Amino acid sequence: MDFAFDPRTEELRERLLEFMDSHVYPAEPVFAEQLAAREDEWSTVPVVEELKAEARRRGLWNFFLPGEHGGGLTNLQYAPLAEITGRSPQLAPVALNCAAPDTGNMEVLSMFGSERQRKEWLEPLLDGEIRSAFAMTEPDVASSDARNIATRITRDGDSYVINGRKWFISGAMNPNCRIFIVMGKTDPGAEPHRQQSMVLVPRDTPGLRVERGMRVFGYTDGDHGGHAEVVFDDVRVPAENLIGEEGGGFAIAQARLGPGRIHHCMRLIGMAERAIELMCRRATSRVAFGKALAQQGVVQEWIAESRVRVEQLRLLVLKTAWLMDTVGNQGAHTEIQAIKIATPASVEWILDKAIQTHGAGGVSQDFPLAGLWAAARMLRLADGPDEVHKRSLARRELKQYLPEGEHR
Amino acid sequence: MDFAFDPRTEELRERLLEFMDSHVYPAEPVFAEQLAAREDEWSTVPVVEELKAEARRRGLWNFFLPGEHGGGLTNLQYAPLAEITGRSPQLAPVALNCAAPDTGNMEVLSMFGSERQRKEWLEPLLDGEIRSAFAMTEPDVASSDARNIATRITRDGDSYVINGRKWFISGAMNPNCRIFIVMGKTDPGAEPHRQQSMVLVPRDTPGLRVERGMRVFGYTDGDHGGHAEVVFDDVRVPAENLIGEEGGGFAIAQARLGPGRIHHCMRLIGMAERAIELMCRRATSRVAFGKALAQQGVVQEWIAESRVRVEQLRLLVLKTAWLMDTVGNQGAHTEIQAIKIATPASVEWILDKAIQTHGAGGVSQDFPLAGLWAAARMLRLADGPDEVHKRSLARRELKQYLPEGEHR
Amino acid sequence: MDFAFDPRTEELRERLLEFMDSHVYPAEPVFAEQLAAREDEWSTVPVVEELKAEARRRGLWNFFLPGEHGGGLTNLQYAPLAEITGRSPQLAPVALNCAAPDTGNMEVLSMFGSERQRKEWLEPLLDGEIRSAFAMTEPDVASSDARNIATRITRDGDSYVINGRKWFISGAMNPNCRIFIVMGKTDPGAEPHRQQSMVLVPRDTPGLRVERGMRVFGYTDGDHGGHAEVVFDDVRVPAENLIGEEGGGFAIAQARLGPGRIHHCMRLIGMAERAIELMCRRATSRVAFGKALAQQGVVQEWIAESRVRVEQLRLLVLKTAWLMDTVGNQGAHTEIQAIKIATPASVEWILDKAIQTHGAGGVSQDFPLAGLWAAARMLRLADGPDEVHKRSLARRELKQYLPEGEHR
Amino acid sequence: MDFAFDPRTEELRERLLEFMDSHVYPAEPVFAEQLAAREDEWSTVPVVEELKAEARRRGLWNFFLPGEHGGGLTNLQYAPLAEITGRSPQLAPVALNCAAPDTGNMEVLSMFGSERQRKEWLEPLLDGEIRSAFAMTEPDVASSDARNIATRITRDGDSYVINGRKWFISGAMNPNCRIFIVMGKTDPGAEPHRQQSMVLVPRDTPGLRVERGMRVFGYTDGDHGGHAEVVFDDVRVPAENLIGEEGGGFAIAQARLGPGRIHHCMRLIGMAERAIELMCRRATSRVAFGKALAQQGVVQEWIAESRVRVEQLRLLVLKTAWLMDTVGNQGAHTEIQAIKIATPASVEWILDKAIQTHGAGGVSQDFPLAGLWAAARMLRLADGPDEVHKRSLARRELKQYLPEGEHR
Repeated sequence: MDFAFDPRTEELRERLLEFMDSHVYPAEPVFAEQLAAREDEWSTVPVVEELKAEARRRGLWNFFLPGEHGGGLTNLQYAPLAEITGRSPQLAPVALNCAAPDTGNMEVLSMFGSERQRKEWLEPLLDGEIRSAFAMTEPDVASSDARNIATRITRDGDSYVINGRKWFISGAMNPNCRIFIVMGKTDPGAEPHRQQSMVLVPRDTPGLRVERGMRVFGYTDGDHGGHAEVVFDDVRVPAENLIGEEGGGFAIAQARLGPGRIHHCMRLIGMAERAIELMCRRATSRVAFGKALAQQGVVQEWIAESRVRVEQLRLLVLKTAWLMDTVGNQGAHTEIQAIKIATPASVEWILDKAIQTHGAGGVSQDFPLAGLWAAARMLRLADGPDEVHKRSLARRELKQYLPEGEHR
Repeated sequence: MDFAFDPRTEELRERLLEFMDSHVYPAEPVFAEQLAAREDEWSTVPVVEELKAEARRRGLWNFFLPGEHGGGLTNLQYAPLAEITGRSPQLAPVALNCAAPDTGNMEVLSMFGSERQRKEWLEPLLDGEIRSAFAMTEPDVASSDARNIATRITRDGDSYVINGRKWFISGAMNPNCRIFIVMGKTDPGAEPHRQQSMVLVPRDTPGLRVERGMRVFGYTDGDHGGHAEVVFDDVRVPAENLIGEEGGGFAIAQARLGPGRIHHCMRLIGMAERAIELMCRRATSRVAFGKALAQQGVVQEWIAESRVRVEQLRLLVLKTAWLMDTVGNQGAHTEIQAIKIATPASVEWILDKAIQTHGAGGVSQDFPLAGLWAAARMLRLADGPDEVHKRSLARRELKQYLPEGEHR
Repeated sequence: MDFAFDPRTEELRERLLEFMDSHVYPAEPVFAEQLAAREDEWSTVPVVEELKAEARRRGLWNFFLPGEHGGGLTNLQYAPLAEITGRSPQLAPVALNCAAPDTGNMEVLSMFGSERQRKEWLEPLLDGEIRSAFAMTEPDVASSDARNIATRITRDGDSYVINGRKWFISGAMNPNCRIFIVMGKTDPGAEPHRQQSMVLVPRDTPGLRVERGMRVFGYTDGDHGGHAEVVFDDVRVPAENLIGEEGGGFAIAQARLGPGRIHHCMRLIGMAERAIELMCRRATSRVAFGKALAQQGVVQEWIAESRVRVEQLRLLVLKTAWLMDTVGNQGAHTEIQAIKIATPASVEWILDKAIQTHGAGGVSQDFPLAGLWAAARMLRLADGPDEVHKRSLARRELKQYLPEGEHR
Repeated sequence: MDFAFDPRTEELRERLLEFMDSHVYPAEPVFAEQLAAREDEWSTVPVVEELKAEARRRGLWNFFLPGEHGGGLTNLQYAPLAEITGRSPQLAPVALNCAAPDTGNMEVLSMFGSERQRKEWLEPLLDGEIRSAFAMTEPDVASSDARNIATRITRDGDSYVINGRKWFISGAMNPNCRIFIVMGKTDPGAEPHRQQSMVLVPRDTPGLRVERGMRVFGYTDGDHGGHAEVVFDDVRVPAENLIGEEGGGFAIAQARLGPGRIHHCMRLIGMAERAIELMCRRATSRVAFGKALAQQGVVQEWIAESRVRVEQLRLLVLKTAWLMDTVGNQGAHTEIQAIKIATPASVEWILDKAIQTHGAGGVSQDFPLAGLWAAARMLRLADGPDEVHKRSLARRELKQYLPEGEHR
């Protein structure tokens, strides 16, 4: 057992931290100005492209993807880098071409895509030229149970025809989001985990309508393409747009979730560190009732509790990454679920205290805290609400105490 | 001791509930459409004026104000009516001309205004013709301690000249907000509670600049005039615009706070009831993992806990109203503080569970829950953060155990 | 609506407070000494009998019982008196002959007992001459669901024969506990709520074995007769010992629970007030890191939060008492459940903070706090765990949202 | 970074787990019987000595002590073994001669004792022949701040004379506790951290009076010697009984605390695992309202949350052990404090849920849960209350944000 990062990780952390200081943090106010000034509410602003160019020039690119296509890092090596990008979550992940949902989509294409699919969509994604969306969640069903998915994907000659309604499709409001991976049912009569398939649907396919942006609390999240409601109305794509095989949708979704969750959790920890830093800065600079907030017992309690929680979360996420590397995503199932349960809730708590330390400013656009809070809160629901994961984890824990053959 | 409402309250509750059903709830979707369609982000939409006309026609008007100018109700009679309006907080309070911050401003003018001030500003406010703002909070100081207020109000001949910066001035983005009550220091050398004064500043006074709208978790709150940052740059008003006497600002602010807090708390309880209703409706209509959410133990726990909390909160608020009626705002000081501590935090908790029950929809614009949550969260900071009130309440509790003459 | 006590209550409160100051608090150290010195771990000590005599002399007697047999008070009048006795829960309730489980047993006999039963058992209980026990909970089943009760009561000629095992039978270790009310099944084939009956079993009946005292955390609660495990092994009593009718046990148990719960909750509130007082006394007298605990923000937060919680709890309990008086125990069902859910948990929280304020002393025998904590904790389980009550309350709340005829 | 145990640890874990199964768990009921049957409330019972003999025979002995005198393990190697002993905390630690407070005392003697002191006291302690006590906490001062210690140790010729009162001196009620390490002030005029010294005081020294056993939530903890109040009344010991140098007491206490805290935390994690196991067993075997507790959502939530918390705690404790091994106790200061803050509170929460799952049985002597809870609760106070550690940790976190030279 050893808690030190390996030399490769240390070296990359240093280079990334330098990039954050020299380019990312200074770009934050520029980004805010450009967002305020743009005419279109959903398009990318120039500073993002500049950061991407600079990051790529420095070799800080596609770290999320193992193997030859990506940075060649293990999950354990990538995790602390993802944490650092979480300190500036609107800019750093996209600058390194490590932003959701593209990362998950690139993984899917990399693992399950045909050569042609990889050439057409994976390459421009790896180059950061286009963006993509993952269309799974539906407004009308509890989508945390994939078996509820109602969108139909019907084979018709050499085509698939898609009908359904999706929402909270992150990034899809951005006109540069060129391709959708769509989950739907090809065979509702099959056994529950073999009913679903995934197909690639280019944005400009007739019948695909991006209807509106969903808000998260009051935020449009327009800086990264928002969260769209999308209708598929007799959308027809060539049969070769199927990813993997028919009935393989559930398995692909499962494969996509593991890394996705750990990336989210690592970035959340970076957000928590940013929040603690802001809380401490505010506490040392603001005076109330004759002494600095930093000298008030209640604020001290918040800071200590935040530190104690973050240290625990980080270790659990790192161990999960290590398990994924050593025993595979399936072997790390319990831990992946555990970090999905623990991280958003704890980080939300920390952000709440950081907000409270900032007074009215904390809820406003003058500090990043309220926006980070909304992102953390959303992650208590995204990829399934906490309660679903707790239920599932508990049932696995209980299984060993059940009489042979009994499964509840 | 008697926990039944008196006949006048019962009768008004019935009439108000009827109005909610027949006019307010049906107006909610209309309101949303009109808001989405308006060109100006900050102005009032027609359906609000229609509701006001109807409410006034029905005698549901100015209930908040005791005495001849208002509805002639006690606090205890008004409280359950304010709760009902909280169920539709964007529409019902304004429809009854009982919306903050106008209510507090009308109280101030009614109690402390000169005859001329009352004629010029109180009358159109009571008629619902104009709106008003209360400019106290400042970005640069911990404004929960009124002694920190930095805005200067300087006597110069027959005028007062105002210089300072305020923010989170609710309602001030609305162009129909015609008058500001501004708190500032007239005599920084006086003893701490006699340094402040309040003056009336019409919106179009030269030097007054409404700079921008502050966001609350992404929301502009544009439907009721937002939360403005306002600069006072050598703003000059006639000396007769002083409210009450020089040095009386702190006392007026205190007088204004008691009713303001209890109104907020009553409306929060109505919001909580709305949240419980939505949570139950969702729970009985949504199925996950083979059974309705309403049959899942964790959701049942949320509903039970919500009910138990709301019942306690309501009683404490009602008792506080009764105390204000029987022993005065000063005598109800501890209880006013207690409801300010307990209500936003508990209602925030309930709203969080209602959101969680709704899945991704819960954080979106398709349900009122996320917006209500932001309002409740804001009230853990507005009028002083929870921590300030807890500290003060504890010190009062501890006082009786201190040796004679020792005050900490 | 009126939050003032009526004159009768005020007068009794004053007399009771005087008795607490002059007799009960001074008796606490004497009681501790006599307990330590007694030879038998379970018997009553002399100071208790002296307090009872004095209380009765003062007319502070049997307040719990409405009607001619008791103090003639309503629940609303008794509640604030029960609260006061909760401040010294080992002495004051028993001194006033208002201690559980005798109170509930006297109610049962008063309402359902035959003339002969009342003469033989109710009279000496009302006179405080003997004690009694209520034998319902069983070790082998989830007794919160009365339908699970496994003890059998079988009619055999002119007798009933009882077989079964009970535990946590409070008071039964005390040799002066002369009579047991035993709940068991007379007709396991009847519909679920008509299977149970209650019979009176004198302590010295052959076959009744009091096996051992159950601990609550480390406490024997020997001062009030402990919590016994009791075995009924072919215990035979005359048929006339049946209380009410065969099959009426469930209904009697329900009738007994309402007042029992509200009495427990009122006493818990008195315990919380005692805890707050001790916390404040400690905080003002103890110095750490250069200042009194009372000046430390975290301790202030505890005190404020405790005060805010107690005020809410008390009002909900008082309203529940009022409802029981005005619409009956059945009409107050939701509120009775609400106070059972809210009170032990909140008071446990307050006691935990009071303990923490006392350092190691807080967990020890030198302060009453750890003992009070164990009593509050026990009440999150006694009469059914919190979770059972939450589930039931939620189902009632949800019922109005279910389609006609659907009951879950 | 690597989360696997090294081969030595794996091998010892296996041997220890085997010993637990074959000897320790079977000894638990024997232990309970022998405790119930002994005449003296404070002495050791035979089964403990048998377990010690067996453990030593198997080479499972003195693991806690690094270096030649002990097991030669690092902290990181010992930690998972200590966790396992925590599953049976009354038997396993003492069986392996790894029980507090002896462990800390042996560390002190090993590091700071003279050759003679080591020969006289360390050797029989390492052999498990005698027990020892550490006398630091005092009833009259907030002992978490060592500067408050009031006991005086005065040099008088070739002797030291000790006067003072200590309490919660664990183990001291056991007559086989032969030696006390006593902390007191030798020079109240020195700078704050150089006023204290430690001396060895044999139990039978005249003037040393063990007055009484302090209770912890009703428990005497008599199985391991209780928690004594001890008076030192002109107690005279030879000057050579000084440990280390005069004025070195504070430094020795600090050196003693690091390992002590991590051992406590590891055992607490073992207690939490035991609680989860019991909770799962109960949940799968108990039926309420028609289905097993294991199928009820609220119980599932407890189990999941418990698992998630324990995984995080364990990793933080292991990392702390690794830090102590690699950068020393001083370098691990923040983490040692973090585990002291996090572990007792989280484990207390888990135990509370396990108790609740067991109904009334959970608070009783029939399950180990209530006793474990009391131990965890005590550790929120022992070695300083949580609040002291949070304050200190926060101040360290804040330091980096303070202007140069400013220390609060």
